[in-house]
Amino acid sequence: MAFEFTAKILDITSKSRSIIMNKDDAKKLRMNINDRVKVITKSGKETVCLLDITSTFISPGEIGVFYNISEDLEIKNGDRVIIELAPSPASIRFIKKKMDGRNLSKEEFKIIVSDIVNGTLSDLEILAFVLSQKFLGMDMDEIEFLTRAMAETGDILKFDEPVYDKHSIGGVPGNKVSLLIVPIVAAAGLLIPKTSSRAITSPSGTADTMEVLAPVEFDAEELKRLAIKTRGVIVWGGALNLAPADDIIIRVEHPLSIDPKPQMMASIMSKKIAVGVNFLVLDIPVGKGAKIENINDGRKFARQMVELGERVDIKVECGITYADQPVGHAVGPTLEAKEALEALLGKGPTSLIEKSTALAGILLEMAGKATRGAGQDLAKKILYSGKAHKKMLEIIEAQGGDPKITPEKIPLAANSITIESPADGYVTRVSNSSINQIARIAGAPFDKTAGLILHRKVGYKVKKGDPLLTIYAENESKLTTAHSYAIANPPVTVEGMLLQRISENV
Amino acid sequence: MAFEFTAKILDITSKSRSIIMNKDDAKKLRMNINDRVKVITKSGKETVCLLDITSTFISPGEIGVFYNISEDLEIKNGDRVIIELAPSPASIRFIKKKMDGRNLSKEEFKIIVSDIVNGTLSDLEILAFVLSQKFLGMDMDEIEFLTRAMAETGDILKFDEPVYDKHSIGGVPGNKVSLLIVPIVAAAGLLIPKTSSRAITSPSGTADTMEVLAPVEFDAEELKRLAIKTRGVIVWGGALNLAPADDIIIRVEHPLSIDPKPQMMASIMSKKIAVGVNFLVLDIPVGKGAKIENINDGRKFARQMVELGERVDIKVECGITYADQPVGHAVGPTLEAKEALEALLGKGPTSLIEKSTALAGILLEMAGKATRGAGQDLAKKILYSGKAHKKMLEIIEAQGGDPKITPEKIPLAANSITIESPADGYVTRVSNSSINQIARIAGAPFDKTAGLILHRKVGYKVKKGDPLLTIYAENESKLTTAHSYAIANPPVTVEGMLLQRISENV
Repeated sequence: MAFEFTAKILDITSKSRSIIMNKDDAKKLRMNINDRVKVITKSGKETVCLLDITSTFISPGEIGVFYNISEDLEIKNGDRVIIELAPSPASIRFIKKKMDGRNLSKEEFKIIVSDIVNGTLSDLEILAFVLSQKFLGMDMDEIEFLTRAMAETGDILKFDEPVYDKHSIGGVPGNKVSLLIVPIVAAAGLLIPKTSSRAITSPSGTADTMEVLAPVEFDAEELKRLAIKTRGVIVWGGALNLAPADDIIIRVEHPLSIDPKPQMMASIMSKKIAVGVNFLVLDIPVGKGAKIENINDGRKFARQMVELGERVDIKVECGITYADQPVGHAVGPTLEAKEALEALLGKGPTSLIEKSTALAGILLEMAGKATRGAGQDLAKKILYSGKAHKKMLEIIEAQGGDPKITPEKIPLAANSITIESPADGYVTRVSNSSINQIARIAGAPFDKTAGLILHRKVGYKVKKGDPLLTIYAENESKLTTAHSYAIANPPVTVEGMLLQRISENV
Repeated sequence: MAFEFTAKILDITSKSRSIIMNKDDAKKLRMNINDRVKVITKSGKETVCLLDITSTFISPGEIGVFYNISEDLEIKNGDRVIIELAPSPASIRFIKKKMDGRNLSKEEFKIIVSDIVNGTLSDLEILAFVLSQKFLGMDMDEIEFLTRAMAETGDILKFDEPVYDKHSIGGVPGNKVSLLIVPIVAAAGLLIPKTSSRAITSPSGTADTMEVLAPVEFDAEELKRLAIKTRGVIVWGGALNLAPADDIIIRVEHPLSIDPKPQMMASIMSKKIAVGVNFLVLDIPVGKGAKIENINDGRKFARQMVELGERVDIKVECGITYADQPVGHAVGPTLEAKEALEALLGKGPTSLIEKSTALAGILLEMAGKATRGAGQDLAKKILYSGKAHKKMLEIIEAQGGDPKITPEKIPLAANSITIESPADGYVTRVSNSSINQIARIAGAPFDKTAGLILHRKVGYKVKKGDPLLTIYAENESKLTTAHSYAIANPPVTVEGMLLQRISENV
């Protein structure tokens, strides 16, 4: 059934590839919101869109066409177009098959992922695909097919030598370990082109932290050139066309924080394939509030990632790490960059240096630079020799930052406030979620200097009046708000103050 | 974190309550598509919207505001507004709880459904709620809570006497039984205000068929007035505000034809509560291609609907009916209306009269108008006495149609073509899906007169050259296309032609 309409071009570019029909026309034609319709021009160009319906501004007989679609179709205001219901793409049938509990083939995953990337599938359809994974699971064959399909629908970098990488599944504040691991590993001569993310819900992503020291946005060619030159880079992955389905899938997962295990595995590994990685150390933080809460689940996830790696020719080793409190003391882009630089000078906190050298050590062992069990010692040697620090300054310079940067030169926020211990006792608990919230309210990651320093962590003995936490903010009112939040939601619990605090705030 | 923008009002009304931000701003503010943001005006008005992101037409510093939202906020082009991330509504937490496999309380369902109706939840969030029902199921308490919440968020009609109703879960072509049941039951003195739907994917809904004889769009007050006057009406339910969450849920289910059992039960029963129904006969067509394919599932569904009815004070009886081929011979609005009128004159096909009187008989028994087992006889008596026909003409007149209508006066389509049997034999199979497609291609339900007459059904003996099917269409080219489709996808299989047809078309 085909119907003719007059195009009304709308001054908006829409990602959702919709066209808009008056509701009376839609009713007459029995067309519904989200129907897939084909738009055909007089010159024979055509495209498939999703139908949206309005009661105003688009009159009966008119069809609202977003600017980007009008460009695709080469039509202008007032042109006549034919609208007809379009058949469903095959990918819809495969998603329904998955929803019915049947496994999908390699070819079927390829078609679904390619339709996600080319805009054929709507957000609703993509969400149904993701939720089928969540509720019905996927076997290892399917996860492999999905992983490959996600990698193959984007760019794939090729290096002429083995590529090393480190990835953390995230969920622990202050995790600036990549800023130590990359220079340690690169200083040992290995190639480690690290792509990283910006914070979405946390106070700082690795890309945000690195950006304090140097630019992080490069295209694939520049990334390759830089990596070959310095052996290591730390760049933002979002500017590259690596496994582009991932960003679209994250967009539909975001509203309900959905993150099914099979999708998470495919997301991580497809990006590693895209960067050409051969050896990967995977950091799996385990603890309350992390993505994985108990160690048995952490081990199971590790085994599955090792198997997935074998299937796609990436050698994976996993480190299960402690996630009950921040890594190091600093949270927020500037404060974390400063702490990482200090650690590279051998002056960092134990938790940061231990975790970074343990993970770097695994990569050194995988590369045969150290015997099994001796990797961390070698990593520490490289760190304490100053070679990692020197390598980091090279990387900073190559990416366009100041190679003369020192921790002291990194500016602090204009305003700060320190919270002191209300009692003598031991720190019995640090709340990651409160830490994250305080740093976000203070302005991180938008205000680079905003964040906090956690002076005392679990197990430390404190006296009444000792500093527990210093909050930093550019903006005074954000500082006040963050401080109030910290008082109401204690980030640090000192034994002895616990009961009182709870009764005050409940 | 609050940011100030200049409003750019867009000449479009959007159902999705989005505002549009330039992608550079979104990147800077770490805001994502589908984030929930609060828009606050200088005069203190505020509303929550979902974020959309564009790269053109909305410049950095501007925020695109759809016309309907600008009206809510009383702002005009160029006004300054504050945008900040809004907290998630509680309903999001409850949907996540359901996704985690935990049961929801009455209060939680109320909040979810009310947020669906008031536009607080996005389509993605609603789909996640519906898919949780599909994959995790719901117990009878939850289905009851959902049903009540859906009814209570819309209008509820109140009559001062018992209300009777008939509902079919659908899936069988030519099911015009309501046009017989309503006048039979009303002629017996019972009150039956039947709301019905228009076709979405079928060739004719009950509202489409009735509309051939009289207008079907009325508001709640008119519906009540008409029903009290004539004891029966057949109107379109879509113009009423009955269980309004249902239409929104259907909108997100539509792209993947998702229809989980719990949602289907709540959908049916909430509309019955809204119309004030006390006694309901539920038609459950069972057969290949119907919503329920085998009789045991049909029985189970029937028992669940009876139980749900008990919980919401509606007495339900179910009739499991045969759905392997159309009811009667006519498919398409005009042809079905004509066949129904003939049947009311006692001249209709057996399958239509038997099914209609069986279901009407159940209602008569529930009302105590007939003893158990004697309902269908009473229904037939009312039909053959002409009382049902007289009542139907009254209803047609009350709704604004021509009370002097006869089957002969109903105009047929300008064009028709008849397919003849290619062999002697028995009709062994009728394909509902082919029948539906042929009638749709011929123009139904858009062209009221389009459709088909199925001359021979399963079990009939036919001779070579006997008419099997006549297709009707207003438009000659649609007739040709429908005819070609019928040749390629035989709607009627005559034993003896079977093998040949299959080898021709595979």
